[in-house]
Parts: sequence; C-alpha cells; structure tokens
Amino acid sequence: MQLIAFDADDTLWAHESIFHDATNRYKTNLEHHVSHEVVEEKLYTCERENLKHFGYGIKGFILSMIETAIEITEGKITASEIQEMVDLGKWMLSHPVEVLPNVQESLLQLKEEYKLIMITKGDLFDQESKIARSGLAEHFNDIHIVSEKDEACYQRIFEKHEVKPEDTVMVGNSLRSDILPTAKIGGHAIHIPFHVTWLLEQVEDHHLHGITYHELSDIAMVPDFVRRLAS
Amino acid sequence: MQLIAFDADDTLWAHESIFHDATNRYKTNLEHHVSHEVVEEKLYTCERENLKHFGYGIKGFILSMIETAIEITEGKITASEIQEMVDLGKWMLSHPVEVLPNVQESLLQLKEEYKLIMITKGDLFDQESKIARSGLAEHFNDIHIVSEKDEACYQRIFEKHEVKPEDTVMVGNSLRSDILPTAKIGGHAIHIPFHVTWLLEQVEDHHLHGITYHELSDIAMVPDFVRRLAS
Repeated sequence: MQLIAFDADDTLWAHESIFHDATNRYKTNLEHHVSHEVVEEKLYTCERENLKHFGYGIKGFILSMIETAIEITEGKITASEIQEMVDLGKWMLSHPVEVLPNVQESLLQLKEEYKLIMITKGDLFDQESKIARSGLAEHFNDIHIVSEKDEACYQRIFEKHEVKPEDTVMVGNSLRSDILPTAKIGGHAIHIPFHVTWLLEQVEDHHLHGITYHELSDIAMVPDFVRRLAS
Repeated sequence: MQLIAFDADDTLWAHESIFHDATNRYKTNLEHHVSHEVVEEKLYTCERENLKHFGYGIKGFILSMIETAIEITEGKITASEIQEMVDLGKWMLSHPVEVLPNVQESLLQLKEEYKLIMITKGDLFDQESKIARSGLAEHFNDIHIVSEKDEACYQRIFEKHEVKPEDTVMVGNSLRSDILPTAKIGGHAIHIPFHVTWLLEQVEDHHLHGITYHELSDIAMVPDFVRRLAS
C-alpha cells in the first residue's frame, strides 16, 4: 500500500449537517406558504436540475433555494425573505469547520507510514477556505479539489502520483463519489458512513453488484485496517 | 525560456464582455427604480464586499446582483425580477466560449518550442466547462485553476514545474493578477490589454513602480517576442 486518499466533506469534517440545518431553517421560513414536504421535494428537484449550471457547492445551493422559493410561492415571496436566503448562504459559507472525532490522531498515525492525499469535490473557493480552517492541510502530501469524482478523475490523480490503483486506498463517506469509482478501477475502498447523506449522493443497491469494498464505522479503525490490508 | 504560462479569461477567450453585457441588461431592468450610475456603483460595492464570501465567478456575481437589487429598491424588487437575474446568470454560464483571434495559431507555434501551461482564476466548475468548450486544452502541458493569483500562487506553480521564475513568461490581460505578481517574483511578463477590464482588476499606477513588464497589442506577437527574449 503506497497511497491513502481521503475524501474531506463528512469524512474529515462535518459538512452535510450544515446543509441539513440550513434546509430546516429554509423550510421553517417558508412554512406559511407551503408544507415542509413540498419544499423539500421541490428544492431537491431544483438542485438536481441546476447541477449542470452551478455544479456542487453552497453558492449553487443558495441560488436553488431562491429559485425554488419563487416557484412554490408563485412569485409571492418577498425581497426580504430572499435576502434571508442569501444571508443563510453566507452563514453556511462562514460556518466553523468541525473536524470529526479521531481524524487528527488517525492522520498522524497514517502519515508515518503512507503518502496521504485529500480528494475533495466542490467549489474551489469554499473548499480551499475549509481546508485552511480545518488545520489539516499539513498532514497531506497533496490536495486535489475536483469538480466531479468519477473513475477518470481518480485514474488521473493516481497516475499523477505514479501509483497503481491496487496500491491505493480511498477512504470516504460517499458510496457514489468515493467508493464505487475507486473500487471499479481496482483500488481498495473503505466506506465510513456519515449519519446524514445527501439524496444525490445515495446509490441504488444494484450499482454495487460485483464491487467489493470495506466498511468501517470510525476513522480510528483505518490505520489498523490498512496495515492488515497491506500485509 | 522554458515555460510559458497563459491567463485564460480575456487572454485566450472573451469573458469580461459577458459580465459587461449582463450588467447592461441588469441596469436596464432596474432603470425604473434607479439610475444606471447608482446601480453600477452599488453593484460594484456589493461585489467587492462579497468577494470574501463568494470568491470570483458568475455564481457570486448573480448573488451580488440579487443583493444589490434588494438594497437599492428597499425591498420593492419583485420575485419575478429576481428570477430574471438568476436566468441572466444561467445565460452567462452557458454562453459560448469565443476563442480570441490569433490564439489558436500562436499556441500552435509556441508549443513546438516551449512547455505551455494555463493559469486561470475563478470558479472550478465554470472554468473547467469553459476550458472544455474552448477546445484549447490539448495545447497545454498542464492547467491550473486557482482561487487567487498572487505571488505565492505563481511561486508554487513554477516550483511544481521545476522552473525558476526567470525562465518563465506569463502572458495575460490583467496587470493585477497576471503581470505584477509574476514580474515581482522575477518572471518575464507580457501584458496584452483587453478592451474591457473589470474595475477590481484595475491597478493604480503607483503599484507599478519599479516593476518591468512588456506590453503587446496582440497575442500573435508573442511567439516572435519570446524568441527574441530568449536569445
């Protein structure tokens, strides 16, 4: 085993919970117009539709909140309610980065023996800011911020580091973005589920056919696990 | 001379003109509320203030258009007018990438003799999309999308390519982002002015004191110029 790659959002630090809290505030703000269920469904549809325009990240999410609110209130939403959404987005963007338990210790152990890299998807500006605020950058040999985590992306990154996929381990919370594409190209993949997973990150069971990956409940178990994998 | 780095927006393809056209449409849409001058000034102030939240790029620009409109109309702007701004943003994001005259030919000539890289600032998702649509990626050995173009950024990139700044040439339209930081760390810098330059990209004269850079009116002049510089 030569290289261990880590996802960042919801693997190294809490992320989806910020979207979750923001979505709850958004639903509460709109409840005098429509039910929470309708807001949730329409917002999800709008986000998915807007991915091709905005990509992943908070700024696109704010714009989708605004569009959804205009649509579901049939234009009755007021300017000051829209300003609240922009402010909610700024709150998300400046939210403290909460490094998850056992992350620091596990990285410290692993960096003694392996080359560590971070591979994170999303908005360049957001991600750079979170990396800086997390204080974790110094543990990594290299950090890749990418717009989509697919097989081609991982292939390109592993080639850049001159390692074969079979000598790599990818650790992440998302089956779709972290586990399936790396396992498919022949890498080892460790899934550490996070309690909240974004709808667009969920994978249907049949996509998992024939793909082998490992599942651990805590990042603290990674160092021992990798050692056993390598031996 | 070992490495030639190119800025992308307004150096390889038209960019600021899209913001310019969008701003004009935005001012026209708001003219029954306030004058063009006031809109322009307030939008600029809001954009500058929001840079720390949103960074560079079209999504942040749309959010600043929305915030400015709410502020200057004292909340009287309607939801459908705000939807127009979101749509204007989507129009910008899907605008065809117009490669500037002589770019293709100049890159073809230069790549025969030098290592070419692209260094572009902005939103990862936007920039990747524009690079793909420009059809220019194949001319470059490497492409760097960064969130801020400062001396540290250029130093890091040149180190990564194992070249000394004095063996590099940076070509770009922005004195602030392309020319000054590269010239300051000892690189050669060629300024090719573009007819529209964003206010935040303009540099006051005194910042140029003591910095030497070259100015060419057209990218077609770069190959000959670099050859003379190297000899």
